[in-house]
Amino acid sequence: MQKLYVVGLGPGGREYMTGEARAALEEAELLCGYTVYIDLIRADYPDKEVLATPMTQEIERCRMAVEAAESGKTVAMVCSGDAGVYGMAGLIYETAGENSPVEIVVVPGITAALSGAAVLGAPLIHDFAVISLSDLLTPWETIEKRLRAAGEADFCICLYNPSSKKRADYLKRACGILLESRDPQNACGWVKNIGREGQESRVMTLSELMEEKVDMFTTVFIGNSSTRVMGGKLVTPRGYENKRK
Amino acid sequence: MQKLYVVGLGPGGREYMTGEARAALEEAELLCGYTVYIDLIRADYPDKEVLATPMTQEIERCRMAVEAAESGKTVAMVCSGDAGVYGMAGLIYETAGENSPVEIVVVPGITAALSGAAVLGAPLIHDFAVISLSDLLTPWETIEKRLRAAGEADFCICLYNPSSKKRADYLKRACGILLESRDPQNACGWVKNIGREGQESRVMTLSELMEEKVDMFTTVFIGNSSTRVMGGKLVTPRGYENKRK
Repeated sequence: MQKLYVVGLGPGGREYMTGEARAALEEAELLCGYTVYIDLIRADYPDKEVLATPMTQEIERCRMAVEAAESGKTVAMVCSGDAGVYGMAGLIYETAGENSPVEIVVVPGITAALSGAAVLGAPLIHDFAVISLSDLLTPWETIEKRLRAAGEADFCICLYNPSSKKRADYLKRACGILLESRDPQNACGWVKNIGREGQESRVMTLSELMEEKVDMFTTVFIGNSSTRVMGGKLVTPRGYENKRK
Repeated sequence: MQKLYVVGLGPGGREYMTGEARAALEEAELLCGYTVYIDLIRADYPDKEVLATPMTQEIERCRMAVEAAESGKTVAMVCSGDAGVYGMAGLIYETAGENSPVEIVVVPGITAALSGAAVLGAPLIHDFAVISLSDLLTPWETIEKRLRAAGEADFCICLYNPSSKKRADYLKRACGILLESRDPQNACGWVKNIGREGQESRVMTLSELMEEKVDMFTTVFIGNSSTRVMGGKLVTPRGYENKRK
């Protein structure tokens, strides 16, 4: 049976890939993916066949990957971060369908919630929610409902796709919703270009976050009511201090 | 300045570690951690000094790691999964305090939400919440509130620590709360011993999950209202099917 690996590359450079991901790329005869991610790995596999498609061509990209696997090739579809978090794993299963002869293997990677949290300190140590602010595929009402729920239940929160040209004010709107239940001083932060050239990060309050200008390469973190700033890092306690007393 | 790495090992075997994690272990002079995790890596570093402490000794373990780093050693504190998700990263910052001379570097790893999701298919493709059912450090009322919020806002949900000897009925209680807002047919699954010997997984409905017996080495997944079972895998659509129409 031909294998179709759906591989999470992690945040950027090859040092963030797992051994399992590297083995899948090694085994594959054809590497598929969005042009930018293919370019990250291309130099390491100069002799492999490559199929790079532009952004927003996700459906076409998955169809080509599944067809190549069905025709007998071992294929690796690459995604940044984790293949199973806003990645291609779901669409690959949907494209292959119930009775596909292809064996689909999802290879997890370090998603931006984890790599960004590590840069900022330890903001997601406790229960957390991951929410994308992109309304390309999700109605804004659903996004608002999830923001409100995560705010009220005091989750740590990680926001993906906080902004784009067409959605310049979405982070501001999200912060407004969180401020219905959260203190304006709630500790927050963002990381830009995680694990890549030009990595930047900042720690701030929720009311300051509301005025931040971020781009589509930024991941945003909102602590819970216990999260503190310590030596410039965001630290969410797990509750050991109560045990210590 | 001495470095204290807090390293996520991923789910088990060394193939799940990132290159960054391996480099940190290589550089460290002293490896610290819970006995079980130290045993996973000890054989690869036979000449390194090792400091293994039993479970529930987290405060003592972090104190020893910080003191060793302050005394001039390069230290790696290892955690299973990700150091920043119910891991030691937060407690290391708290133990070191504001003015520590030690540089703390968090090295992310594949947490069970990601590695378990990959085994089951693609359950966490869309917005998701991660909740621990352990009430050792968190009041049960807080856990209930978060379960209710995540259920009502139609998050995909991943449950850590779903059971222990003292908390044999916690998963049942959690399912009961989710059933207030979710369909009994809501697609669910669990994975046990992820990435280790004896890995097992099962896909089922929410009402079936309520009757499952799981242990502390199990991670539980509850899809959102769109999650389907396809060829035995849990698949959460991202919304491309609407785009396709």
